[in-house]
Amino acid sequence: MRILVVSGPNLGTLGRRQPEIYGTTTLAQIHDQLRAEAEALGVELRCEQSNHEGALIDLLEEESGTSQACVINPGGLAHTSIALADAVRGYPGPVVEVHLSNILGREEYRRTSHVAAAATAVIAGAGAGGYLLALRAAVQLAGGRQAHSETRG
Amino acid sequence: MRILVVSGPNLGTLGRRQPEIYGTTTLAQIHDQLRAEAEALGVELRCEQSNHEGALIDLLEEESGTSQACVINPGGLAHTSIALADAVRGYPGPVVEVHLSNILGREEYRRTSHVAAAATAVIAGAGAGGYLLALRAAVQLAGGRQAHSETRG
Amino acid sequence: MRILVVSGPNLGTLGRRQPEIYGTTTLAQIHDQLRAEAEALGVELRCEQSNHEGALIDLLEEESGTSQACVINPGGLAHTSIALADAVRGYPGPVVEVHLSNILGREEYRRTSHVAAAATAVIAGAGAGGYLLALRAAVQLAGGRQAHSETRG
Amino acid sequence: MRILVVSGPNLGTLGRRQPEIYGTTTLAQIHDQLRAEAEALGVELRCEQSNHEGALIDLLEEESGTSQACVINPGGLAHTSIALADAVRGYPGPVVEVHLSNILGREEYRRTSHVAAAATAVIAGAGAGGYLLALRAAVQLAGGRQAHSETRG
Amino acid sequence: MRILVVSGPNLGTLGRRQPEIYGTTTLAQIHDQLRAEAEALGVELRCEQSNHEGALIDLLEEESGTSQACVINPGGLAHTSIALADAVRGYPGPVVEVHLSNILGREEYRRTSHVAAAATAVIAGAGAGGYLLALRAAVQLAGGRQAHSETRG
Amino acid sequence: MRILVVSGPNLGTLGRRQPEIYGTTTLAQIHDQLRAEAEALGVELRCEQSNHEGALIDLLEEESGTSQACVINPGGLAHTSIALADAVRGYPGPVVEVHLSNILGREEYRRTSHVAAAATAVIAGAGAGGYLLALRAAVQLAGGRQAHSETRG
Amino acid sequence: MRILVVSGPNLGTLGRRQPEIYGTTTLAQIHDQLRAEAEALGVELRCEQSNHEGALIDLLEEESGTSQACVINPGGLAHTSIALADAVRGYPGPVVEVHLSNILGREEYRRTSHVAAAATAVIAGAGAGGYLLALRAAVQLAGGRQAHSETRG
Amino acid sequence: MRILVVSGPNLGTLGRRQPEIYGTTTLAQIHDQLRAEAEALGVELRCEQSNHEGALIDLLEEESGTSQACVINPGGLAHTSIALADAVRGYPGPVVEVHLSNILGREEYRRTSHVAAAATAVIAGAGAGGYLLALRAAVQLAGGRQAHSETRG
Amino acid sequence: MRILVVSGPNLGTLGRRQPEIYGTTTLAQIHDQLRAEAEALGVELRCEQSNHEGALIDLLEEESGTSQACVINPGGLAHTSIALADAVRGYPGPVVEVHLSNILGREEYRRTSHVAAAATAVIAGAGAGGYLLALRAAVQLAGGRQAHSETRG
Amino acid sequence: MRILVVSGPNLGTLGRRQPEIYGTTTLAQIHDQLRAEAEALGVELRCEQSNHEGALIDLLEEESGTSQACVINPGGLAHTSIALADAVRGYPGPVVEVHLSNILGREEYRRTSHVAAAATAVIAGAGAGGYLLALRAAVQLAGGRQAHSETRG
Amino acid sequence: MRILVVSGPNLGTLGRRQPEIYGTTTLAQIHDQLRAEAEALGVELRCEQSNHEGALIDLLEEESGTSQACVINPGGLAHTSIALADAVRGYPGPVVEVHLSNILGREEYRRTSHVAAAATAVIAGAGAGGYLLALRAAVQLAGGRQAHSETRG
Amino acid sequence: MRILVVSGPNLGTLGRRQPEIYGTTTLAQIHDQLRAEAEALGVELRCEQSNHEGALIDLLEEESGTSQACVINPGGLAHTSIALADAVRGYPGPVVEVHLSNILGREEYRRTSHVAAAATAVIAGAGAGGYLLALRAAVQLAGGRQAHSETRG
Repeated sequence: MRILVVSGPNLGTLGRRQPEIYGTTTLAQIHDQLRAEAEALGVELRCEQSNHEGALIDLLEEESGTSQACVINPGGLAHTSIALADAVRGYPGPVVEVHLSNILGREEYRRTSHVAAAATAVIAGAGAGGYLLALRAAVQLAGGRQAHSETRG
Repeated sequence: MRILVVSGPNLGTLGRRQPEIYGTTTLAQIHDQLRAEAEALGVELRCEQSNHEGALIDLLEEESGTSQACVINPGGLAHTSIALADAVRGYPGPVVEVHLSNILGREEYRRTSHVAAAATAVIAGAGAGGYLLALRAAVQLAGGRQAHSETRG
Repeated sequence: MRILVVSGPNLGTLGRRQPEIYGTTTLAQIHDQLRAEAEALGVELRCEQSNHEGALIDLLEEESGTSQACVINPGGLAHTSIALADAVRGYPGPVVEVHLSNILGREEYRRTSHVAAAATAVIAGAGAGGYLLALRAAVQLAGGRQAHSETRG
Repeated sequence: MRILVVSGPNLGTLGRRQPEIYGTTTLAQIHDQLRAEAEALGVELRCEQSNHEGALIDLLEEESGTSQACVINPGGLAHTSIALADAVRGYPGPVVEVHLSNILGREEYRRTSHVAAAATAVIAGAGAGGYLLALRAAVQLAGGRQAHSETRG
Repeated sequence: MRILVVSGPNLGTLGRRQPEIYGTTTLAQIHDQLRAEAEALGVELRCEQSNHEGALIDLLEEESGTSQACVINPGGLAHTSIALADAVRGYPGPVVEVHLSNILGREEYRRTSHVAAAATAVIAGAGAGGYLLALRAAVQLAGGRQAHSETRG
Repeated sequence: MRILVVSGPNLGTLGRRQPEIYGTTTLAQIHDQLRAEAEALGVELRCEQSNHEGALIDLLEEESGTSQACVINPGGLAHTSIALADAVRGYPGPVVEVHLSNILGREEYRRTSHVAAAATAVIAGAGAGGYLLALRAAVQLAGGRQAHSETRG
Repeated sequence: MRILVVSGPNLGTLGRRQPEIYGTTTLAQIHDQLRAEAEALGVELRCEQSNHEGALIDLLEEESGTSQACVINPGGLAHTSIALADAVRGYPGPVVEVHLSNILGREEYRRTSHVAAAATAVIAGAGAGGYLLALRAAVQLAGGRQAHSETRG
Repeated sequence: MRILVVSGPNLGTLGRRQPEIYGTTTLAQIHDQLRAEAEALGVELRCEQSNHEGALIDLLEEESGTSQACVINPGGLAHTSIALADAVRGYPGPVVEVHLSNILGREEYRRTSHVAAAATAVIAGAGAGGYLLALRAAVQLAGGRQAHSETRG
Repeated sequence: MRILVVSGPNLGTLGRRQPEIYGTTTLAQIHDQLRAEAEALGVELRCEQSNHEGALIDLLEEESGTSQACVINPGGLAHTSIALADAVRGYPGPVVEVHLSNILGREEYRRTSHVAAAATAVIAGAGAGGYLLALRAAVQLAGGRQAHSETRG
Repeated sequence: MRILVVSGPNLGTLGRRQPEIYGTTTLAQIHDQLRAEAEALGVELRCEQSNHEGALIDLLEEESGTSQACVINPGGLAHTSIALADAVRGYPGPVVEVHLSNILGREEYRRTSHVAAAATAVIAGAGAGGYLLALRAAVQLAGGRQAHSETRG
Repeated sequence: MRILVVSGPNLGTLGRRQPEIYGTTTLAQIHDQLRAEAEALGVELRCEQSNHEGALIDLLEEESGTSQACVINPGGLAHTSIALADAVRGYPGPVVEVHLSNILGREEYRRTSHVAAAATAVIAGAGAGGYLLALRAAVQLAGGRQAHSETRG
Repeated sequence: MRILVVSGPNLGTLGRRQPEIYGTTTLAQIHDQLRAEAEALGVELRCEQSNHEGALIDLLEEESGTSQACVINPGGLAHTSIALADAVRGYPGPVVEVHLSNILGREEYRRTSHVAAAATAVIAGAGAGGYLLALRAAVQLAGGRQAHSETRG
């Protein structure tokens, strides 16, 4: 099984951008933890980050036939991008959206997510550890197709 | 470490109520899986369910000094109960809200959660498996107090 | 056929609470009229009232396998309780919501009903006599399952 | 006692228009059932249908001094016509609004009714049988003027 | 100069419909007063009433080349009819909207008027006397084209 | 009979402020026209203008026992001042609000008027001539107290 | 194949009503162009216009069994008439809504269309030429039933 | 005179729950202060607390014939419970709602109170001392029935 | 200790303006009661009233260094004046807002208060007696600075 | 004449992404059909697709002096991108927005289009055939500059 | 060239009111800096402050024929005063609104400004230095009338 | 000191795109003026423009450690991009947002700015000259760190 892990705008500066909200762990460190976990779970991993909405959509299209599930942290695009949400809808496997902070407890405009509405599952507020939970969820949902289809909103 | 797992209204009929949305696993089966996982993680567990908002608040008060973290599925109260959200705010340890379905992708009135706004983290849409992820998240957040305080919204 | 008739918060004081809106008939008198009508229709009746949201949900769960239809006056919970609406959704037979006053012609916050959105039919504004019409509707809808499924919103 | 039964736009094609929502009974069949019921109740009936808002208002004006109560299914005008609602307000007897489907459980724009806010009572979601319940309610409300005045919103 | 005076839905029953709001003067009496005033002002008058939105639009089209100004009481259509408002926009002379009651001080849904937004001037709350003021305003505005064009919104 | 005519903020510069909206007639000219009309009608007049909300309220209080009716052009305060609206509510005689432009056809924020909601009648869009119509309406409403009370919203 | 072309309120005065928005072509000229085009496409045409909502609904009912597709310009009713939208839903063939101006780029209240939500396709802003495009679209959609059902929203 | 003092959800943990908002005084201490004040005022007191909405409604019903006035701190239920508000409306004596913090200066969702809309008076933001002011207000309002009826909204 | 008591627009006519809402006590009588109470409490009092928003702000600025607490009834300005709210924020001592009627149970536009959001505490609906309670609250809050800072929203 | 045809995010996967909504025709097939039609109409065509908002804007800038009209399917960007709408406003020729599905009949967030508000015309719901209609409309609007300017909103 | 600099409510206490938001510079110091800058730019200056909305409008009227541009800090009136915005619209020269704090990044109710909508330009968040930038902008805009008219919204 | 000046979508065509709103100065000319001013102020400048949201975020990340302040004109992204706003929040120095037109006086959707809410200061409506004011503000804010932190919203 191959899992795509994509992170959107501003996640490349994780660890130094607003650490009081997003913590001090860098995205490289998260990718290392994910790779260790993936090895333990026996799954292949591709980890990418881009500040470009178009590049994230390109990636989801490109990995549609190759990977079986996706973990996505759309950053601020979660709340504004219908185009990215449509790309998630077009991705054939389960998609788990992850956020470092609890977006449901922050500013009003962060409480809704176009992308989450299109995703299979959402994990928010568990910090950097949320990526590991999301990987675990993605593997589990990709393993059981019925489970996936019955929980998709 | 002791973890409180509470489920709110209508979760006692899980497995037979609207299985096309909530799946066929019963709450008893989820509790069994949680207990197995808890044993593996070396934590003590208390699992409760009630259809009464007041009983859920009583429980959070009672377990404030005894348990170190809480997993809560508030059911429909998530969207309407400020009283329960205030009880979550009054609980001293991390609180992980879990939903079987992806509430961010369902009806408009299910997309906001007073309780989630007060919780540390939220996991939604991973089906019955979401409880296990939530337990794991709760243990992890209770172990690292800084992590918890920095991710609380 | 067995019909469950449940009344929610504040309906125990019917007849003396704001009689200019809700009339002077007591709930005991309504129950008597319902029992007479039930006898005429040849159906069994269980009549309950509670001020506790949780107790109403408990009741719907308990009567799921026993009764074939439900008449419910959720009182003020109609407008605020998603948990009760979900319990109505989980109830296998037709559910007829009844209100003494015409909630669509009163204060703004009484014009929407979470519970009515989940019910099969709604009768409002016919006073105490509305309970009798609701019983009649419930019996009729429970007798014809196709009719019921085709009118559920 | 004479009762006016009026049906608004699109109800002339009942039985073949969107039967999965509105059922397969035609308006002619409903009128037959109503006439049978009226005979049993000893009341006179006038049944009309029009796709013209103005014609419905003309009818209410014309029958103001002649009939004692009115059953009205305003169809889609329920949600948009303040003019029809004002005509209902000008009608001297009780007015019972009836809808085949449960408008409170359908699309957002069908959940409010200008006409229902002006009516004495509302019955929705009971299918074609709802007309019979509405007739019964109208007769009952017209018989007891106090009851009527105390339940008008 | 010829002035068109049109009244919309429910104004035919003026004097007996909700007199506590609309007063006891009938539309026939208002027409008589208007004709007397018109004679004094030396203008020709055509007075019509219809409960049909389409008939009001037909009338405005028909009188476009014949009359020089219009007094309109659209009744409840004021708040809902974009079609009638567009007909007013298409009428070449000044249009004065008149309401018996002060619509800006009544229910929320009566406080906006699509037709008034298209009219030249609005007079509300002066009772039956408002028609006379509106006639006077229409004559004055039709006499002074600059005045009219500079006050149209 | 004594009539108070008050104009609010920015009306002192009438005739040179945005003449494409408000016309070229000055307030002094309007006052002259009003005085001529008042003489014809046999009523006494007091005409005032102030840019100060407080001064307008002072004036209404001061004239409460002295004048029998009031014509008021609250300018921009119409849309924002609950305090002025309350002063209008406290004034014992009929109050006619007048606007030079048709506020119901202008920017969204000009379409509601706190003061109009408290007034007896409203005249808008008739330009400078609207003051004369308002005077006429005020005299008429003050003469017939029943008429006044029945048209107040 | 027979196509129904219906135009709603105010379209009878096309060419002289607000030509800066709607152009100078009359409806009669558009009908002539449509008939020429229909002949070229080998389809039969019925062209009607009415200012009456009820007449438009009557027409759609009457042509339900006779024509295979419909082109409709509902005029201002597009934005307000749920009754007409329901008639469109009840029409068995594809329905193409056409507007002369680009309603999505005009006033806020013209940007939503109850009728368009019920139609198969919408064409707006192409001026009088839009009717020809709509005819072409209707013929094409009526020819391919799969295409039609898959694009209906 | 007998006064009922009821406190709702989460008030049992006062003094240790979020003391930066609610202070460090416990509910037991407040009850002691109230009893001392009651003795000084010569009134009898019953003090209760419950986390259950239903229990609060039960209490108001039970004390309807026994006590003459009520002081209520509904906690989070203030903002969400129409059922509790209806119970307050059904209580025959004056009801004074009290909040420790100034709910009008906190989060948006705390700024409205269904219960306060039904109460006679509201005191918020005076901390634990607010209970004493509320007792004083309740006694005063219960003593003077005219005063009470004239200030009830 | 010196306390400033300020009343805003329309409060100078208290006792004769809408007595069915605001009671028959005049502001002069309230000032007398306050002075008696102040003497009993051993505090100095300055009582002022103005219909001018600017004068109220001037007063708060002037008394910033002189008085230790403020009781304010902003009248209708409570709901509209951000400028007055900012002046309250700039006042160094506790500020208690008082309203004679229960603003939370009246018209929608009276249910929010910019000034109350800036005040320390709010008392509404206790009639003229509310001023005395507010004085008592102000003295108590000014005496205990911690208490004050912890209850400010 | 040269026409630019641009398609935005997710349109590169047309034919396999959600075919129940968007059909099974690929973008390459649509481009082929467009080229055939263009040849018939004697116009030059440039067809492009990109998932990048910035690239679409670059393209419109680049083609501003070269092409005479534009057909654009902005995909999900239609609803969210003011930047793309501004680019359309900056494009000198007519712009026809095309959507495969009827966006006015889909989810709430798809019913408004920033880009359509800036475009000359809109065609939605005609499936892949809509591109051909849009090309035809673009050619027609580019040919007649008056027609274009008079229909632009 | 003569420039009017006006500051509204609460700006007289600048430097001691909420210095964590508005800084410690007093208005007198800002006026000194402005006068120095004005001398350098060779322009005459009039600096005024008032807490009275009416006084600010009086000032704008008085300076209409005398000064060529205006710098205005309306304080809290920015968000609520349509009357002041109309006065700005009536002022013949360019008007630059200045705010010490960044109103677009503060509380929701501070994010819109009626006055800014009427002004030529806005400068916010640059602290006391913003007044100097505003003076510079005003001089520049007053010097180039085309520039001014083309940037006015 | 080094200042980053970035301009977003559509600003590359400044001078020829909608000159009646944005003026005739090109971006190249603005960059020349900025460089002249920068030289006068003794600061280093980097000027960039891109139509790609991702490229603007890349730039802010890249210049985080190199430049000390930023002037940004986000074009249409100001109103829609939370991702760009988050990048601004992550930039360590002061950020001044500049707009050529007065966005607070234009269309509703241009009146809010996600980016401005994250910026230190905003300058709008001063035309091309606004860039120079923004540079001056950026230099001043970067020079005085206290000033900057106290004015950030």
